[in-house]
Amino acid sequence: MVDYFIGIDGGGTSCRAALANGNGTILGRSKSGASNILTDPDTALKHIAEAARLAFEEAGITPDLPSAPAVLGLAGNNVGDAVNYVQARLPFKQSEIVSDGVIALQGAIGDEDGAIGIVGTGTVYIARHDGKLHSIAGWGFQVSDLGSGARLGQLALQESLLAYDTIRPMTGLSKAILAEFGNNPENVVDFARLAKPGDYGRYTPKVFEYARQGDEAAIRILNTGAAGIDEALDAVNAITRSKGRLCLLGGLAPLYPEYLAERHRSRLSEPLADALTGAVALAVKAYGSPSEARA
Amino acid sequence: MVDYFIGIDGGGTSCRAALANGNGTILGRSKSGASNILTDPDTALKHIAEAARLAFEEAGITPDLPSAPAVLGLAGNNVGDAVNYVQARLPFKQSEIVSDGVIALQGAIGDEDGAIGIVGTGTVYIARHDGKLHSIAGWGFQVSDLGSGARLGQLALQESLLAYDTIRPMTGLSKAILAEFGNNPENVVDFARLAKPGDYGRYTPKVFEYARQGDEAAIRILNTGAAGIDEALDAVNAITRSKGRLCLLGGLAPLYPEYLAERHRSRLSEPLADALTGAVALAVKAYGSPSEARA
Repeated sequence: MVDYFIGIDGGGTSCRAALANGNGTILGRSKSGASNILTDPDTALKHIAEAARLAFEEAGITPDLPSAPAVLGLAGNNVGDAVNYVQARLPFKQSEIVSDGVIALQGAIGDEDGAIGIVGTGTVYIARHDGKLHSIAGWGFQVSDLGSGARLGQLALQESLLAYDTIRPMTGLSKAILAEFGNNPENVVDFARLAKPGDYGRYTPKVFEYARQGDEAAIRILNTGAAGIDEALDAVNAITRSKGRLCLLGGLAPLYPEYLAERHRSRLSEPLADALTGAVALAVKAYGSPSEARA
Repeated sequence: MVDYFIGIDGGGTSCRAALANGNGTILGRSKSGASNILTDPDTALKHIAEAARLAFEEAGITPDLPSAPAVLGLAGNNVGDAVNYVQARLPFKQSEIVSDGVIALQGAIGDEDGAIGIVGTGTVYIARHDGKLHSIAGWGFQVSDLGSGARLGQLALQESLLAYDTIRPMTGLSKAILAEFGNNPENVVDFARLAKPGDYGRYTPKVFEYARQGDEAAIRILNTGAAGIDEALDAVNAITRSKGRLCLLGGLAPLYPEYLAERHRSRLSEPLADALTGAVALAVKAYGSPSEARA
């Protein structure tokens, strides 16, 4: 019989763990360092074990990882080699590695059908219908993730060059962005050539800030982004038949709703719980005794 | 007194040269190998000299480069270091390095005011008003060059992922593109991560091909691209006050007009001559005696 269950929410900046009993009641939470299984799997393994031990300690229980089953939500879970390497070296009784989106879904909507949209530097949508999971978008800013922070930042840079070229009006946003590049479009081009999603995303707060002031270019960019999110949510609704919760998560979740179509805005609700709670609930469901699996 | 003038049109795949007399009459044309001054300036110098010698020979004249002034239209002319290196080593009497766009403008519209749009893998627009040159766009596909071949190909890949994700309808174009990637979106993502403009541009002929068959996605992509070109041409017209010739050049020039706004389509005319003719005309204008400068 298993006494304790571990949930892990691991990513590039930190690794969080939660310990629950067989009822799914969370007894302790903790946090350690980065756990990116793609770029540094050994450090990720170290931080996963550290976070799990700390969660036991937080709960006032002597850590015993080999006795505890775990569900881990990890970015990069779709890269087989990294997953196999980490899976084989985890210190838990049993363990399952799922995507960060899957634990976020479980946390946000619990066991019912419904969907989430994670709207941050990238975008990904996860829907559950008749218990089956569906994932939409999340392929990166070059050819996907319309409306993501990376896309908004990229559009802001594009807008500033269009203004420089007298193709679009020069607005406060474009002026501010060009000023950051010394008013030299070649600096924008040099930046864009190598920009990673997070590099573009750094310009996204400025877009929301200028849009609030009525900046024409900023509003155009956000309307373009919102249209991309609206059509993805339409696809999500086609899967769920618009049943159950619909939650937006991620850094842009609080900022976007006012730009979305009314049909989506009116359906949005707050997540029930966070991704870490989702992970530990999944661990209880997967490895708890049938009578315990209620989380 | 100078007897002969050289024009050079050099790029990544070949270097072309023309020889003219003081009236601007072209006496010989020729072609040699690649002359990319950014990636391989020494080879570029070799091929420039070779093309010039061959142009003399074509004209039946003993080559004498040190006696002939030249104007060279070279891609990469905006990178100072490369230009200085090449400029100091050219074999001509005098020489000026200008952009490939400037010689194309001269060839297409002659000495009058007017404008060209070069619509190929990238896009750039060059306008002449009251004798002064203005350049618009050409900053690359990441943050500029809306409607370029690179952009159209990128949109085609994006469209195929949107269709895969059930966000947009699956059309023949998206089906054909996904099939090229083994129907695995991760292959599209891997490709897009490192794709250069020309890599994306390889998918552009397919977009025009499917649009001709009525494919909804292909038509949407071309309308998006054409809107980008339309607004750039509006900016061009604001500079030229819609006076003089307006010519489209580049690989997509024959394909795009039917998608453009009527206000632009009705103004388009055929170029008077090619870029090489423009280069040699500029050489006669710059270095010929005043009475000769009529080309």
